[in-house]
This record gives sequence, structure tokens and C-alpha cells, in this order.
Amino acid sequence: MLRMSFPSWPESAARLIAVAAGRAPADMVIRGATWANVQSRELIPHTDIAIAAGRFAYCGPDAAHCIGEGTEVIEAEGRIALPGLCDAHMHIESGMLTVTQFARAVVPHGTTSMFVDPHEVANVLGLEGVRLMHDEALEQPVNVFVQMPSCAPSAPGLETTGREISPEDVAEAMTWPNIVGLGEMMNFPGVINADPKMLAEIAATQAAGKTVGGHYASPDLGPAFHAYAAGGPADDHEGTREEDAIARVRLGMRAMLRLGSAWYDVERQITAVTERGLDPRNFILCTDDCHSGTLVNDGHMNRVFRHAVACGADPMVALQMCTINTATHFGMEREIGSIAPGRRADLILTSDLATLPVETVIARGRVVAQDGALTQDWGGFHWPGTARATVKMKRDLAADDFAIPAPDGAADVIARVIGVVENQAPTQALTATLPVDGGLVKADGAVCQIALVERHRATGGVTNAFVTGFGYDVPCAMASTVAHDSHHMIVVGTSRADMAAAANHLRALGGGITVWREGAELASVALPIAGLMSDAPAAEVAAAAEAMGAAMRACGCSLNNAYMQHSLLALVVIPELRISDLGLIDVTRFEKVGLFPEPQE
Amino acid sequence: MLRMSFPSWPESAARLIAVAAGRAPADMVIRGATWANVQSRELIPHTDIAIAAGRFAYCGPDAAHCIGEGTEVIEAEGRIALPGLCDAHMHIESGMLTVTQFARAVVPHGTTSMFVDPHEVANVLGLEGVRLMHDEALEQPVNVFVQMPSCAPSAPGLETTGREISPEDVAEAMTWPNIVGLGEMMNFPGVINADPKMLAEIAATQAAGKTVGGHYASPDLGPAFHAYAAGGPADDHEGTREEDAIARVRLGMRAMLRLGSAWYDVERQITAVTERGLDPRNFILCTDDCHSGTLVNDGHMNRVFRHAVACGADPMVALQMCTINTATHFGMEREIGSIAPGRRADLILTSDLATLPVETVIARGRVVAQDGALTQDWGGFHWPGTARATVKMKRDLAADDFAIPAPDGAADVIARVIGVVENQAPTQALTATLPVDGGLVKADGAVCQIALVERHRATGGVTNAFVTGFGYDVPCAMASTVAHDSHHMIVVGTSRADMAAAANHLRALGGGITVWREGAELASVALPIAGLMSDAPAAEVAAAAEAMGAAMRACGCSLNNAYMQHSLLALVVIPELRISDLGLIDVTRFEKVGLFPEPQE
Repeated sequence: MLRMSFPSWPESAARLIAVAAGRAPADMVIRGATWANVQSRELIPHTDIAIAAGRFAYCGPDAAHCIGEGTEVIEAEGRIALPGLCDAHMHIESGMLTVTQFARAVVPHGTTSMFVDPHEVANVLGLEGVRLMHDEALEQPVNVFVQMPSCAPSAPGLETTGREISPEDVAEAMTWPNIVGLGEMMNFPGVINADPKMLAEIAATQAAGKTVGGHYASPDLGPAFHAYAAGGPADDHEGTREEDAIARVRLGMRAMLRLGSAWYDVERQITAVTERGLDPRNFILCTDDCHSGTLVNDGHMNRVFRHAVACGADPMVALQMCTINTATHFGMEREIGSIAPGRRADLILTSDLATLPVETVIARGRVVAQDGALTQDWGGFHWPGTARATVKMKRDLAADDFAIPAPDGAADVIARVIGVVENQAPTQALTATLPVDGGLVKADGAVCQIALVERHRATGGVTNAFVTGFGYDVPCAMASTVAHDSHHMIVVGTSRADMAAAANHLRALGGGITVWREGAELASVALPIAGLMSDAPAAEVAAAAEAMGAAMRACGCSLNNAYMQHSLLALVVIPELRISDLGLIDVTRFEKVGLFPEPQE
Repeated sequence: MLRMSFPSWPESAARLIAVAAGRAPADMVIRGATWANVQSRELIPHTDIAIAAGRFAYCGPDAAHCIGEGTEVIEAEGRIALPGLCDAHMHIESGMLTVTQFARAVVPHGTTSMFVDPHEVANVLGLEGVRLMHDEALEQPVNVFVQMPSCAPSAPGLETTGREISPEDVAEAMTWPNIVGLGEMMNFPGVINADPKMLAEIAATQAAGKTVGGHYASPDLGPAFHAYAAGGPADDHEGTREEDAIARVRLGMRAMLRLGSAWYDVERQITAVTERGLDPRNFILCTDDCHSGTLVNDGHMNRVFRHAVACGADPMVALQMCTINTATHFGMEREIGSIAPGRRADLILTSDLATLPVETVIARGRVVAQDGALTQDWGGFHWPGTARATVKMKRDLAADDFAIPAPDGAADVIARVIGVVENQAPTQALTATLPVDGGLVKADGAVCQIALVERHRATGGVTNAFVTGFGYDVPCAMASTVAHDSHHMIVVGTSRADMAAAANHLRALGGGITVWREGAELASVALPIAGLMSDAPAAEVAAAAEAMGAAMRACGCSLNNAYMQHSLLALVVIPELRISDLGLIDVTRFEKVGLFPEPQE
């Protein structure tokens, strides 16, 4: 097991000085590397790097004077030594993994620093859940810094979360040792309208000298955007167009360019640097959301770096975008993000900067991965029972709980239908004429049923509605306790009996995702922690998620990112029509609407 | 009088948002400017800038929606709007002015932010003096941030300062509202040797999340320099060669390139950017020391900017080096250093970026200077009597106090002589054979007398010795209470009677500089505050200093920077031979030596 506590630079300064001066031996010397210097933006050959107390002590032409008995010497043989990669904004929960398992999955890819916003956990477990993530983060042998979630609920009045986050919670979290700022301020209409609660959260963060994360998910770059910038958010990862990135940087925000499992926002924005020649210092790379499968099969920040280079970025500039630029943004440039005296000794050895084969990963002065595999073991953070018992239902459900009575004795009715759109997050607000069978409205053709099962307070509440676009063509159901952002349970199905079985199965599992067909379980991903995360290794979770996708396809679903589409159907901040525990929500007008439109509508 | 208190961004956020959104009128709109955007490194034409509550609220193509009744509109007519200039490291005392008078002198030149290290005041008045500078700084209508002096005394054991600075003092100062970091860590041998006191000062600063200023005055870029970097200093302005700047930046320090009244370190170092192509983000411009005459006749940071451009720097890159780079270095990039929402509304309007005529200066949203003249009045900081009564002598001195008895009855003696070298700070350790007259050693030929008169504790101590290089050729004396770094009184003369008269005159003045010839006062600069500063306007002080220089020349002195050479003769950290209250100091060996070398030497 790695030692997890880590002394500060001042605590280690006397030793670092002694090593650099040649009065004491280093713990490790990397000899004959090519130094990827992100401060000067140079590749400097023939560099020796001495490490002591988990920090860099000497970086220069000859560290012979730092080598003594007990110094481990690594011959770099000209390979490039670059700083460990930083992910500037990400949600651990998107990988359906604990912090520990996420870290174990990404360290072999060279990620040694992550800035994580446990927004999903906050919605389920509130401040206590954030503290657990914070504490688990502190136990990692790599750097996992936590942003305090800002918006739980995301849509006050339109949903009921498990717990809420208040300005007082934000102020308290700012006193914790591992909090680096405020998580993305998604309530951008609130900022633009000077909502006192949102401004109080920003003020508490600024008063603590920490960084306010932004999230301005609108193409409007007019006064509304300027008003948002005037409110204080310091970065934004929601831009998708070149003009979005340019507007953010011009207004003194940092543009975070995102390549997640389903986000492809680097290529269109990085041209601000590669073609328009803007100063690259305010551009930062991040993932935002990565599924376990991406981590297992494709990589993490190394994938983003390679993609940026493939998009035309100079490799040293791209490297700055995922090392020193990130560190500077969070006020941590003297702690991480470069190979320089005093900084945490996080580095990668590679034979080629542009393609970045991650050969050796060193974190805090220890080799933690070699040729894609961990060389150190760690883990064992204890998630308490309260975080593992979050699927609170009054009783098991029956098929009748999903029955939708027709409003009158008519043979058919016009009903609102959530229209899922391939490859897009926004849904369409549709209507459909549906038949009535035995007094109940029947999902028909491409339309199937959707239900939001309350699971935080065991109210027994079930909101029933209709959805189209999944393509299910057999009696089946899929249920998930990952249900952004309030994370109740979303059940979609063509069979009420399967919907009940799937929901009850998740109750038994303590959360997760499950696909049922004609009374049989096809696949499940158990997510017992907050109903969002597994403490199994990433490969296992990725395999289960892959099987779950296959089960969806076996039921007739042909959507790309089908699971994501499912899990976003309760995200009542994205247009047009969504479902919450309070009912069907028109997200163009931010109000609750009935399942059956009034005649005058 | 300007309002001096200034609300924070969070305190003003609701108003800024309202203005940007068009719901409330701005205080001021600058219409039709060309925006020098130091974030993106672009010149953006047709930009409107709206200001409210002393901060930028909107910066974009059209601020018509921000204009209402009471909004002052300034037509820029295409002129360039650039951020107010920042001086990243400087000593107010070098101008022999108070903070207020210094600020009044530099604001018309476009300087709106200064990072000042009151090192000289600390040597005389200790922590209380630093607090007075800090408090006066807070009363300015421009941004004067204070670095806590780190090294008083500069040379422990080799001199006695008026007061000393301890690690506890540093920790206390870090809690004050206007302290941004630790002043230049001049005791670089102490850092390299891991002196616990120096490391404790650095640790207190790092623990407060503030910036540790560096000062590595050595050409040795080997292990000693690496050890210094490992100790924690984050910048350095003592580099003079291109390789100095490169070494600093590579090791993760910021290279501060200095153009002071007598420092010319930009031209040789900026080639690291202009010729070698290093990333410019870690290069910063500063003045370190400016005399009043420079401020009155030549400018301040505008002079440094123009010089950097003349040295080949791209004007936008040079502008970054004295705006956003500085702000980022001190963790203040969201407060100053750019024209962007939320930042303090400090800007310059100019017709030409490269030559930078400073036409209009706006600070915190108010026009403070126009065409080189202040348009606002401010002042009146109260310096208490204790800070004005710092020349403490036991009694008036007589010519006999400067008598140097010969060691024996010989007709001549060999004596150590401080050799002043034209255009260099280091002196030479010389010897000379001097005649004896009536039992007293007689300064002869080019050699004259120097005395260090103790003035902090009224001990009555006078250290007598010899100096050469000034060229005085008439009976005369010059005395100064500016006597780096311990700031006792240095008297240099060819006539013991004039030496006594000059010293006594400074006692009467309460400090300053005076030149006497054959019993008559030729010129004086009164510096009643700490014996270092005047609260008269810069033009008056500059005129007095100019008259003082003329008086030195009238006595035969032909040195360039003659006054500076005089005032540095007690600086017992620069080789080779200096004088202190404890005696003659060999600064190559850091030890006290006798006036007459031992025969075996």
C-alpha cells in the first residue's frame, strides 16, 4: 500500500535544498531525460531530475551530486519526461466508479491530477456525500482535488433531490483541506438574474480565494453571457464553437475544451489557438464525463492530449493545456503541473511526445504504473452503510403502479410524449394519439412508457409518462438509479410487469442499472454507492456496462449512447420535455405540465 | 478627494451583472475603443467598455444597453484601451517619497498597480514601519500592494539595524489585508544553507497562500541556484544575463526584468523571448528602484514598456509582461491586470501602443490623470512623530570624532581603503600608504575619509575608515541617512570639520542628504520620514536631489550615480569591502576586519 499522507513543500524544503545543493542523497534520480519544460515551452535534452520527499529537488544538466547510497536511479535514455497530466474538470460518477477505482483506472494513462465535481453524489447524499468523496480523494496516491458542487437541485422547484446544497454548505466546504473551488455554476439563469443564493455561493468561494467553475450552456454570446461573466465564474467547459472559446477567453475566463466519452468539443474550439493564434495560456483540456469503457479501452487525458495534437495543436502547447495551464487556473502552479523544484514529483516517461505512449508514470516520486499497468496497490476507502442504502422505496412495485388511467371513457387520447433525438441531449416535446385499453392508456408503436420512481424519501411516488425514440420492440424494461441530476429512478419499458421487476431489482441491488425482458433479467450494473458508483475495478464495471448496452440492443434499441439518453431524461434543465418526481416538466418554460394537454393548448 | 475604500467583486457582483445585462446604467462607458486584450493577446477594434462600482461590467461590441441617465460617456474614437500598468517589484523608498507622493508621481504615467517592498523602512522602523507603509498604501486610489520585507538585517552579525524582522513578524503581516507576499529573499546563502529563520519566513508566506519574492544575486547557476529555487522563492529580479532569465523560468520561477534608474537588465534578458522564443508568460517587467528624477523626467512603467518594445518585444507581449503576467504571478488575475468583467477598472487610453503616449488614465473607474497631469487630488496620510524622529544621536559631533589615530609613532601607515568602482555596485578592497600628521592618519590624494555614524540607538558610535573613487578635491563632506541597508548615517569627506557639520545638519533635519564645503551648506535633501522619505511632491524632491548632485560635482566628484555609490557603502552583502556600525566588513569572507591590516596579512 502506498503512503497517502503527503508533507507540504515548506515541510520538505530543508531536505529538497540539501539534495539540490548536494548535501543529501535524493530518493530517486532520473538520468538523461529530455525535459518537457512547460514553463519555458522547450524540450531540453540531457536533463537529470532528482526527487526527494515526493517532490522535485533538482532539474538540470547533471544530478550526479544528488546520487548517494539508496538513491534509485532510472535511466531515461533520452526519453521525454513530461509532467503528469491534469484533468481540469470531471465527474468521477460518470465512470460509475469510486474515486479509488477511477484513479486506479486513469493512472496508467498518465493522469496524476484530477479536479472533480461530485455533483451527482451531492444530489443524493448532500454535503456528507461530498465530504466522503473529499476524504476518499485525499487517500489517493495521486492528486484528486474536489470542487464543491454548486447546484443541488439543478432546477429548484421542478424536482426534489435527495439532499440540497446551500450557500452555508459551500462556505463550510471551503474550509476543508482538499476543496479547490466551486463546481460548475450550472444555474446560469440564476447568475444572470443575480439570484442571491447563487451569488452567495460564488462570494463564499471568492472570499476563500478559490476558483469558481462555470457552466454557461447557451449559444447566446450577447449581454446574457457578459452578465454571467460579470457574476464571477472563472472557467467554462460548455462551449462548442470557436466563437464560444474566444468569447470566454476575451472576457477573462478560461476556456476548457472537452473531450469526454460523448463530448467532442476540442476540434471545433482549438482552432482559436491553432488558426487564429490566440495566446494559448487560457485554454485548458478536460474530459468532464468519461465512462468506464472509455477509460479501459481508450484512455483518459492522454486520449485528450493526442486528440488535441491530431487537431493541429503543437504538442508542447497541447501539453501546457493539460498541465501548467490547469495548475495556474486553480492557483496550484507551485504545487503541480510542471517538472520544477518543489513541485509534486508527478511525471511520465515517453518515447514520443506527439503519440504519447505512456511508458512510466511516477506520482509523488514513486513509480505507480509501467507500460499501462499499475505497479502499486492501493484502495480500501470505507464507504459507510448510509451511502450504500440510498434506494429508499416504500414497497416493491407492481405492474399496476405503472398504469396510466385515461382521463375519460374515450377510445383514445392525445398525450404528451418525450421525444428522444439521436445524438442530441435536448429532447422534443411531442404529442401522440394513443389508444385506451380497459381504461388505461396504452403505449403503442414507437411510444413506450417512462416512469420516475421516487427513491430518496420512500414516498411511494411514481410519475408515469410516455417517451419515444428508444426503439424497444419486445416486452421489456430498463431501470436506472443514475437519473441526472436528482437521481431518482428512471424506468422505461414496453411492459408494465418488466418495469416493476426492473425497479424492484434495483431496490434489491441498492442501485444501478438493469434491463429486463419478458420477466427475465438480461443484464445489470450494480452501483451500490449512492446508486451511482461501484467499488469494483473499472474493467468489471465496463464489462457490465457493455453487457447492459447489448441487452438494450437485444430489446430493439439502436440509439447511440442509449444508456446516456435514458439517464438524462430527468435532467430538467435541458429542453424541451423531461420527467421529474413532481411530474412532467416543460423545460422551455420551466414549468410543470399535465400528461394530457388541455384542449386550448 | 477620492474615495479610498473599495468594495470587493462579490460585494459589487449584483450591480455588475445588472449593468452587463442592461437592467441598470453604468457609471461610465468608454465607447469605440480598440481593446488591448491581454488574455487573448489581441487588439479588438470597436469595443465598448462599461464600468460600474469601480469595476469593469461589460467589454464587448456594443454597450448601448448599459448607458442610462447619469452614465458618463467617453468617446475613445478608436484609441487603444489597455490595462493600467503594474510594477511587479519596487521600493518606494528609492524615490525618497512617501507612498502617496510616489503614487501621485507615477499615475500620470499609467501605473495603476505597484507591488512594493518597504525593505528600507523595515530596517529603520521594523514591523511598525511596514504597517504604516501598508496603511498608507491602502489609502491610495490606485493599487499599492505590499510585500513583507524578509531580511532585516540583511547581514545578521555584520550590522545593527534600527529594528529586526522575525519569522513571527512575517506570520503576523500575512494576516494584514494588503500584504501579497514576502519581499525579496536577499539572504540567498541562508536559503541555500537551509537557515531555519529564512525557511520559517518562506513557510509562513506559503502557508498563507502568498508569493515569495526572490533575490539571487550571483552568476552561479549550478547547484547553489537550484538549491535556492528548491527553497521556495517564486520570482527573481537579480538576473542580468539571458541565461539568468532562462534558468529562472525553467525552474518554475518568474523572471522579473528590471529597468530602474540605474538598472538596465531588460535588454540582455528579453532576448530569451524575442530571439529564443520562450513562452513569454513567465517574464515580468519591473523597476525595482526609481529615483524621483526618473519619475519626473522619464516615466515609470511606461518607460519600461517602451524600452522593452525598443528591445524588440512585440508590443502586446510587452504589455502582458507588465499587466496580466504580473497579476497572475501574485494570484490577482481576477482583480487587476486586464480589461475584463469584474476586474478593477484601471485602464489607459493611448493613440499608439508601441510609443504609448499616456493620454487618459482611469483607476477604479475614475479619470485620475489626463495628458500627463493628475485630475484628482488625494493625500494626507498621517505619519506619526515616531516615524519622523529617527535620527537618534547622543550629541552633536565635532571634527575630533572623525579623527583616526595612527597605531604607532610611524610617519605613515598602510590602511585598508574601500575602492569605489565607476558604474559598479561591488567595491574593491584596496590598501594605501597614508601619512601620519600629529598622531592622526591623514587621508591623502584620492583617498578621503568615510564614517558610519550610528543613528538608531544614540550609542554615539562612529566607525571611521577610508574610501577612494569619489574625486573630491576641496575641503568638503557629504552625509546621508540613506545608507543601505541598515540606514545609519554615512559621511564621506576630505575635511573633518565639514564631516561633523554635515552630520549635525542631518540630525537637525531629522534625516536626509547634505553636502557641505568649507563650513557652508551647499545643498540638502530633507528626508524627515525614517530618514528615508519626504512627503513633498516628487518634483520638489527631484529638484533637491539634482541640486545635491550638482553640489557633489562642485566638490570634484565626477562619478556617475555618485549619490547611489555613497549610499551603498554600508551594504554589507555586496563585495568586497564595506563599512557598518560594527566596523569595516570584508564582504568576500563576511567578517569584520581592522582598519590596518595585520602584518601577516
